[in-house]
Amino acid sequence: MNTFGIRFRFTTFGESHGKALGCVVDGVPAGIVIDEEFLQAELDRRKPGKSQFETARKEADKVEILSGVFEGKSTGTPIAMVIYNTNQKSKDYSNIKDIFRPGHADFTYFSKYGIRDYRGGGRSSARETAARVAAGAVAKMLLREVGIEVVSGISEIDGIKAEKFDYEYAKKSIIFALDKDAEEAQQKAVLAAKSAHDSVGGVVRVVIKNAPIGLGEPLYYKLDALLADAMMGINAVKAVEIGDGYLSVRKKGSQNNDQIRSKGFESNHAGGILGGISNGEDIVLNVYFKPTPSIFQKQHTITTEGKEVDFELKGRHDPCVAIRGSIVAESMAALVIADMLLLNMGRTIEGVKRYYK
Amino acid sequence: MNTFGIRFRFTTFGESHGKALGCVVDGVPAGIVIDEEFLQAELDRRKPGKSQFETARKEADKVEILSGVFEGKSTGTPIAMVIYNTNQKSKDYSNIKDIFRPGHADFTYFSKYGIRDYRGGGRSSARETAARVAAGAVAKMLLREVGIEVVSGISEIDGIKAEKFDYEYAKKSIIFALDKDAEEAQQKAVLAAKSAHDSVGGVVRVVIKNAPIGLGEPLYYKLDALLADAMMGINAVKAVEIGDGYLSVRKKGSQNNDQIRSKGFESNHAGGILGGISNGEDIVLNVYFKPTPSIFQKQHTITTEGKEVDFELKGRHDPCVAIRGSIVAESMAALVIADMLLLNMGRTIEGVKRYYK
Amino acid sequence: MNTFGIRFRFTTFGESHGKALGCVVDGVPAGIVIDEEFLQAELDRRKPGKSQFETARKEADKVEILSGVFEGKSTGTPIAMVIYNTNQKSKDYSNIKDIFRPGHADFTYFSKYGIRDYRGGGRSSARETAARVAAGAVAKMLLREVGIEVVSGISEIDGIKAEKFDYEYAKKSIIFALDKDAEEAQQKAVLAAKSAHDSVGGVVRVVIKNAPIGLGEPLYYKLDALLADAMMGINAVKAVEIGDGYLSVRKKGSQNNDQIRSKGFESNHAGGILGGISNGEDIVLNVYFKPTPSIFQKQHTITTEGKEVDFELKGRHDPCVAIRGSIVAESMAALVIADMLLLNMGRTIEGVKRYYK
Amino acid sequence: MNTFGIRFRFTTFGESHGKALGCVVDGVPAGIVIDEEFLQAELDRRKPGKSQFETARKEADKVEILSGVFEGKSTGTPIAMVIYNTNQKSKDYSNIKDIFRPGHADFTYFSKYGIRDYRGGGRSSARETAARVAAGAVAKMLLREVGIEVVSGISEIDGIKAEKFDYEYAKKSIIFALDKDAEEAQQKAVLAAKSAHDSVGGVVRVVIKNAPIGLGEPLYYKLDALLADAMMGINAVKAVEIGDGYLSVRKKGSQNNDQIRSKGFESNHAGGILGGISNGEDIVLNVYFKPTPSIFQKQHTITTEGKEVDFELKGRHDPCVAIRGSIVAESMAALVIADMLLLNMGRTIEGVKRYYK
Repeated sequence: MNTFGIRFRFTTFGESHGKALGCVVDGVPAGIVIDEEFLQAELDRRKPGKSQFETARKEADKVEILSGVFEGKSTGTPIAMVIYNTNQKSKDYSNIKDIFRPGHADFTYFSKYGIRDYRGGGRSSARETAARVAAGAVAKMLLREVGIEVVSGISEIDGIKAEKFDYEYAKKSIIFALDKDAEEAQQKAVLAAKSAHDSVGGVVRVVIKNAPIGLGEPLYYKLDALLADAMMGINAVKAVEIGDGYLSVRKKGSQNNDQIRSKGFESNHAGGILGGISNGEDIVLNVYFKPTPSIFQKQHTITTEGKEVDFELKGRHDPCVAIRGSIVAESMAALVIADMLLLNMGRTIEGVKRYYK
Repeated sequence: MNTFGIRFRFTTFGESHGKALGCVVDGVPAGIVIDEEFLQAELDRRKPGKSQFETARKEADKVEILSGVFEGKSTGTPIAMVIYNTNQKSKDYSNIKDIFRPGHADFTYFSKYGIRDYRGGGRSSARETAARVAAGAVAKMLLREVGIEVVSGISEIDGIKAEKFDYEYAKKSIIFALDKDAEEAQQKAVLAAKSAHDSVGGVVRVVIKNAPIGLGEPLYYKLDALLADAMMGINAVKAVEIGDGYLSVRKKGSQNNDQIRSKGFESNHAGGILGGISNGEDIVLNVYFKPTPSIFQKQHTITTEGKEVDFELKGRHDPCVAIRGSIVAESMAALVIADMLLLNMGRTIEGVKRYYK
Repeated sequence: MNTFGIRFRFTTFGESHGKALGCVVDGVPAGIVIDEEFLQAELDRRKPGKSQFETARKEADKVEILSGVFEGKSTGTPIAMVIYNTNQKSKDYSNIKDIFRPGHADFTYFSKYGIRDYRGGGRSSARETAARVAAGAVAKMLLREVGIEVVSGISEIDGIKAEKFDYEYAKKSIIFALDKDAEEAQQKAVLAAKSAHDSVGGVVRVVIKNAPIGLGEPLYYKLDALLADAMMGINAVKAVEIGDGYLSVRKKGSQNNDQIRSKGFESNHAGGILGGISNGEDIVLNVYFKPTPSIFQKQHTITTEGKEVDFELKGRHDPCVAIRGSIVAESMAALVIADMLLLNMGRTIEGVKRYYK
Repeated sequence: MNTFGIRFRFTTFGESHGKALGCVVDGVPAGIVIDEEFLQAELDRRKPGKSQFETARKEADKVEILSGVFEGKSTGTPIAMVIYNTNQKSKDYSNIKDIFRPGHADFTYFSKYGIRDYRGGGRSSARETAARVAAGAVAKMLLREVGIEVVSGISEIDGIKAEKFDYEYAKKSIIFALDKDAEEAQQKAVLAAKSAHDSVGGVVRVVIKNAPIGLGEPLYYKLDALLADAMMGINAVKAVEIGDGYLSVRKKGSQNNDQIRSKGFESNHAGGILGGISNGEDIVLNVYFKPTPSIFQKQHTITTEGKEVDFELKGRHDPCVAIRGSIVAESMAALVIADMLLLNMGRTIEGVKRYYK
């Protein structure tokens, strides 16, 4: 169950401190120019150790394409990509080997599988998201051929909210902040938590621009349902909303409906999706990341043998996982849209006939 | 794309005003006592027209099992169920035939398919959820064999929040209210909106009790991701959260982690899921329903030919879709858990050997 | 696991002597004219009791569409069809209730599920193929919109082989014989076996004409692999071959290769498929049906309690299942091609761009 | 569409002359001892260049595990394996760059994708089967934990048939021959074809021993249908039969039925499968491989521009692909059985309750 998508799908593999991690992207249309520089640049956005707002672990996250590309173009065969782990050896994990870190998946993996790669969380580590970003980069190469763009940024950290959403600014911001004016306070909140050996949560906003009308397959592969699936499956995400989301429940229908004029909708409370299908407006998501569970304070836990212990984590961790999570959310959104784009082909017999003419 | 689930899966069919709607439930273990009274009782909970808080449309929602049951037990073959529409003929839909109702899927279905069954929304009508409830009833029959229970209720309407969650009370409440003390105000809010030809939103809380540790398949079939998928796919849902959800983003890690003792977790901020796998605590979801888009006020819209018109809807509609939505959310949760329960079998070689011994 | 196909998929339900059987066809492009007369005519071709070459059981096999069609056209939503069993009540099954008929699935179903609908084989009865024919009829309506035709007929019965393949003749033949000159001998073989309370095997030939080049998804959804899957999944089929099939293994490569000229291939030993992808030639299958296991002779078997008994079947059965199997094989082939046709859309970025332009 | 299986599934990637090929095996139960020596030994059985009966191309086919194994055991996470191509650089492919080799997938890949990795067939090369063998080795490690064994061998080459099936002998035979007495003639036939710049076909027999009763999911994931799918998907396979296969069509029902006694079936014409479900007898398959299309004789073909040319292939090729195909067929059978083994868990509520107790 390490595969996502139907028509444009990817499968990931690898553990935090194993030999390598990577992915196989399948269903990529042939003939797409595969831009390896862009691919690496995407991984660089996610890679750790770029600033004091992130974990100090250094990883080159150098990605290598093993298949599916010939003379610079996709051939329609699976694109396998591998990222070798380079900074995984020195670390001593003996202190967490036999205990379950609170807020982490240690307890559930061990309970489910009866065995656990305890080195840095193994498969459950957020490090696996590098493979999602690699797959997402391929999805983006497909999307830009038809003019679709996916953007994202941090809209909230530790309760400090962005008032405006500037996706161009977010690309340059060291914490991917959407609002220049909120950024300083957001940065301070992260550093304050870090100094206190604690962590903070945050909200990522993702917008898909220029998606064609009609993406999303009713009734059990709806666009919003799939986006929710994709987002909730990212490490540390605890809530997802589309458009006005949870605020819409406090409005009246007359306030929340998006009325229609011939040039489009008069508002976009719905976040670009009606009945699970894109309506031509911007598709808008908010993704809620809990504070990093890795904190450097004494906590109650138990050992794999069930013995109670007081435990204090050591090591290097992101004080706010939402920051690097933004690129992961953006990548997952791109992957969902790519899948929907291909699945949607042939929804009408007129389209099928036109295609095969 | 009208199928949900992998190992325990269901496929639904049918339109609001067609001949019938129904479902085929597949992957049901053989030997389960199929309780037809319970099945019908579940449909009765969802059926419309029971009170002034619901649409006045009357439907018997009488369910008939066509296959998969022999001498009162499941045989392991697909269980098909059908519900004939009985109150669909008289209605005159000529006034909405050529226009797109704001907040509905009319526009997107027509754009996607080039054709639309305009009678009451056709396939996009919430009436389809009757089929989900029927499938969910079968899932519940499976779950109770292993002691798992799924409960739900209304925790918020029009901003009026429940302070306590009494699932037994909700079963008897005419609006499925969780908090007896909030119920009157919630009812009033619904009626006030109704009188104003408007509608209100609401929040449904779903809890899964007594699920075994280990449900959920990393990394792209996580329990929380699948629940998010299932909930966001319900008509009118715009946000989903697990456990403390969006509130957790405003906490510190030290406040949000659930510390562990040998008898269990000291708190349940995580909502019973860690790393996408159930941890033995109650699994807790909040599901946010927007206000019903069907309101009886003049709204801007366009015709199928693109002409702008001012339009006022007539007919019978729920003033708050969250109310009847609660049983749908509960059913979908049961369906997800049933699927996960079967998928989880054989995660260890020891379990496989024990099974085949 | 009662669903077949990815993009154009169907799910069947129902038992031989239950209330009804039927199917849900999903992924049907919108806008196809749904020809109910053709649909019923297809079912009539398969229905039992038309001649002395078939079982004497009479079933009207009247099919009813429950959803997915509006004003005579497909809407893109699932098309559910139901066939009520009408001649299932009178029969007394007490003699087979507790025993396993040799050559039938009685033993394996009972072993697997611990329960068995013993009335006429229940789910394992070939009666379920009526649902496949209904689904196949919808697939054919799609295929003819793009000019693809699927034909079939009996090429061999009891070792008597057709020398020529006349698909038009087969449509009119009472045993769907492809070769008028072999038909009389084939008919005699069937009647001789019937008189001897025995049964005979047969071979069905299916040809898909005018399929576009490019159908089939490497490497694990190849056209030939899927056709083999579809055919071997039909009751009583024990072998499947593509093109020259098993005869090709006795040829040299120089005899078996289809050389290429600008106007096409010089021969069609490959049966229209190279590397799992259609090459523009006729796609040719041979499907081998074992003799009906239902024979009216004393046979050794055991009871559900494991007691050895000598048993003689009574009742009404086809003396040669290949005959009515031909329409089933044809239908399954149509369903595979429909799925492949839709899956193939968007294999190139040029096609995607053209579609969304 | 490069993934096979549902519950135990694998995804392959890679081209004949790309950087690497490999696979990701998913759904492997945790706790299986991963025997890397056995894994490599399996690949060694398939690897080319071991004798004059095989292509002269030398490949080390050294397999490396990248993930999913910790301290020698499977962890339940995906097992990725990679095989780097080492002997792919020197070859000059300019002579086949612009032409379509008869009997190969060149024409169909180019037609479908509009682009083609012409180096040695690219993705369509039988070299990809190395990845299947790697995945199959993991499946075998699972199967042997529950006592299931899969064996195979050559039963026929160029019309020379084995009279007896000695699977132990086949393991040592240089051409995997099942019958020592037929082997010399079979070898001579291969060498004679090779000298004549031609090729021969062959038949592989695969037997699964000791499979539990009950494997196979009716109706569209039957054991025989899946095996047919798996076998027909192997390069050069043109026919598949189960048990007596095509010979059974020339028998009477009274000759073909396997009668039952309390200690088991009296015969095994059915090849161990009834109604798509294993019945406890040996599961028997015959797999028919066409003669290698790569022959060193002048043939008609066309260029990618459609120009007719006479073409003579150069290079190194297997004179009989069935030989090395036997290990591939055996591996695919193991993969199907592993999937079925896990899928079958929980077919009865009694089994579910026992598992979760």
